[in-house]
Amino acid sequence: MKIKPLGDRILVELAKEDEVIKGGIIIPDSAKEKPQEGKVLAVGTGKLDKKGKKLPFNVKEGDRVLMPKYGGSEVKVDDKKYTLIKEDEILGVLGR
Amino acid sequence: MKIKPLGDRILVELAKEDEVIKGGIIIPDSAKEKPQEGKVLAVGTGKLDKKGKKLPFNVKEGDRVLMPKYGGSEVKVDDKKYTLIKEDEILGVLGR
Amino acid sequence: MKIKPLGDRILVELAKEDEVIKGGIIIPDSAKEKPQEGKVLAVGTGKLDKKGKKLPFNVKEGDRVLMPKYGGSEVKVDDKKYTLIKEDEILGVLGR
Amino acid sequence: MKIKPLGDRILVELAKEDEVIKGGIIIPDSAKEKPQEGKVLAVGTGKLDKKGKKLPFNVKEGDRVLMPKYGGSEVKVDDKKYTLIKEDEILGVLGR
Amino acid sequence: MKIKPLGDRILVELAKEDEVIKGGIIIPDSAKEKPQEGKVLAVGTGKLDKKGKKLPFNVKEGDRVLMPKYGGSEVKVDDKKYTLIKEDEILGVLGR
Amino acid sequence: MKIKPLGDRILVELAKEDEVIKGGIIIPDSAKEKPQEGKVLAVGTGKLDKKGKKLPFNVKEGDRVLMPKYGGSEVKVDDKKYTLIKEDEILGVLGR
Amino acid sequence: MKIKPLGDRILVELAKEDEVIKGGIIIPDSAKEKPQEGKVLAVGTGKLDKKGKKLPFNVKEGDRVLMPKYGGSEVKVDDKKYTLIKEDEILGVLGR
Repeated sequence: MKIKPLGDRILVELAKEDEVIKGGIIIPDSAKEKPQEGKVLAVGTGKLDKKGKKLPFNVKEGDRVLMPKYGGSEVKVDDKKYTLIKEDEILGVLGR
Repeated sequence: MKIKPLGDRILVELAKEDEVIKGGIIIPDSAKEKPQEGKVLAVGTGKLDKKGKKLPFNVKEGDRVLMPKYGGSEVKVDDKKYTLIKEDEILGVLGR
Repeated sequence: MKIKPLGDRILVELAKEDEVIKGGIIIPDSAKEKPQEGKVLAVGTGKLDKKGKKLPFNVKEGDRVLMPKYGGSEVKVDDKKYTLIKEDEILGVLGR
Repeated sequence: MKIKPLGDRILVELAKEDEVIKGGIIIPDSAKEKPQEGKVLAVGTGKLDKKGKKLPFNVKEGDRVLMPKYGGSEVKVDDKKYTLIKEDEILGVLGR
Repeated sequence: MKIKPLGDRILVELAKEDEVIKGGIIIPDSAKEKPQEGKVLAVGTGKLDKKGKKLPFNVKEGDRVLMPKYGGSEVKVDDKKYTLIKEDEILGVLGR
Repeated sequence: MKIKPLGDRILVELAKEDEVIKGGIIIPDSAKEKPQEGKVLAVGTGKLDKKGKKLPFNVKEGDRVLMPKYGGSEVKVDDKKYTLIKEDEILGVLGR
Repeated sequence: MKIKPLGDRILVELAKEDEVIKGGIIIPDSAKEKPQEGKVLAVGTGKLDKKGKKLPFNVKEGDRVLMPKYGGSEVKVDDKKYTLIKEDEILGVLGR
């Protein structure tokens, strides 16, 4: 099922953490850090300036983005987790 | 009885949680998560920009919407529960 | 004695809770929920936009309104209780 | 000594509570509620809109006003107590 | 040494509390209330409206003003205490 | 090394407290009050009004200023301490 | 991998703390202060004024900047740590 973010929100799929192995010890889930990298799946219906004019987004579908540690809302649709976050909370874009 | 939301509010009916059964165990009410999906029943009397001009809504009656975990006001009318939420708190729209 | 609300405030009389009887047990006052429905008795002297121009109210005398759980100020005049609430805190209007 | 409120402040004298007698018992001071009614003694030097233009007040000297439970500043001049409160915190006007 | 307040600040010297004597008992310092009256010693370099235009002050040197219980900054210059407070925090002017 | 404050920040060097001696007793460091006086070493790159136009500063290099008790950021460069503070947090200017 | 900061954010690499030795004692990591100096690696996609017009940045790639004690977001990319901070939170620029 497709999700269309509302307003200036961006739909992001967080990167999967590989089983991190340090010195041969597998780190359990609870000790893992939340990944700070994600992939943009969709941009919102549009963000508006003070006069109601639509402004262009600075990220686009497929961009790999750096996410803040706190911020955004997690949703679960069809048993998959997504993050919806306002564009101006995204810290940066990777690799371009 | 009909409810007309005021201003930029949206009237939403949260999805009913099916009796979730995992591995044959029925999960009691108190352990269930609040559903994050809902159906738009009505849009508000209108949201205004800075100059008092009415702006169009991004959701419409019948839309299936993703709701934030916190936010919106619950009301009970004729023994049915509804949620009234400002449009810009709604995270996204499903399936379109 | 008449009360004229100031600015964008609305004077509301909350609905009286009937003695609720469930399974033959009368619920005492302290266990009752605060009613969320009220009747508009008067609208304010006027709400202004950014330029000082008066804006029309979305509710009018006699409307039955849905009130938020928290919000508004209770006053007691001539031993009767009223609620004064800013219009944009009112959630919706019933039955129209 | 005269007090001239600054800006959009209103000088209010709270109503005196009569010795309230319920069923023959005189209620001591500490158990009395703070009165919610007051009389306007003076309006401020003027409230300004965004462009610095003076706006008219909605209350005038002599008006009986409904005060919020919290809000306003108490001052004591020549051993009399007054309340200075911004006009938009006043809830309503009585009897007109 | 002269103090020139910056922006919309006002330099105020709080009134000295006389040794208050009630029924022959001298009240010690710690039991005295902070005086709410002060004298304007100087007004700021100027307050600006949204467009950067200077606005006139509502108080002038020599005015006796009513101060809020909380607010303003105390400074000590040449062993004398002064209060610097933004003009719109001053409650009113006495005796004019 | 020179420090150029950014935006509407002011670089201030706090006055050194002399060893204060009261009645022959030297007050230890921990009992000293933070000095409220400082000297302006540099003004920022410029503060902007709502339209992006640069506004003049009200303090200049060499001014002796009154600092609030709380506010500003302390930095240490080449083992010397400085305070960077937004201009509108500075309370006043001394001796002019 | 390159990081492009979004909006008015600046990508900063904090200065490395040398092993500080005072009187022959090596200070352990946990007792070290977080460095307040950093180098600008990249500026954001652009900051906008109220009308959506791009404003120039006051810092540029290569600048050495003074960072506030609190503020900015730490990210880890390819096992290196970076700080992303809004330009107006940066206190000043060193050595120019």
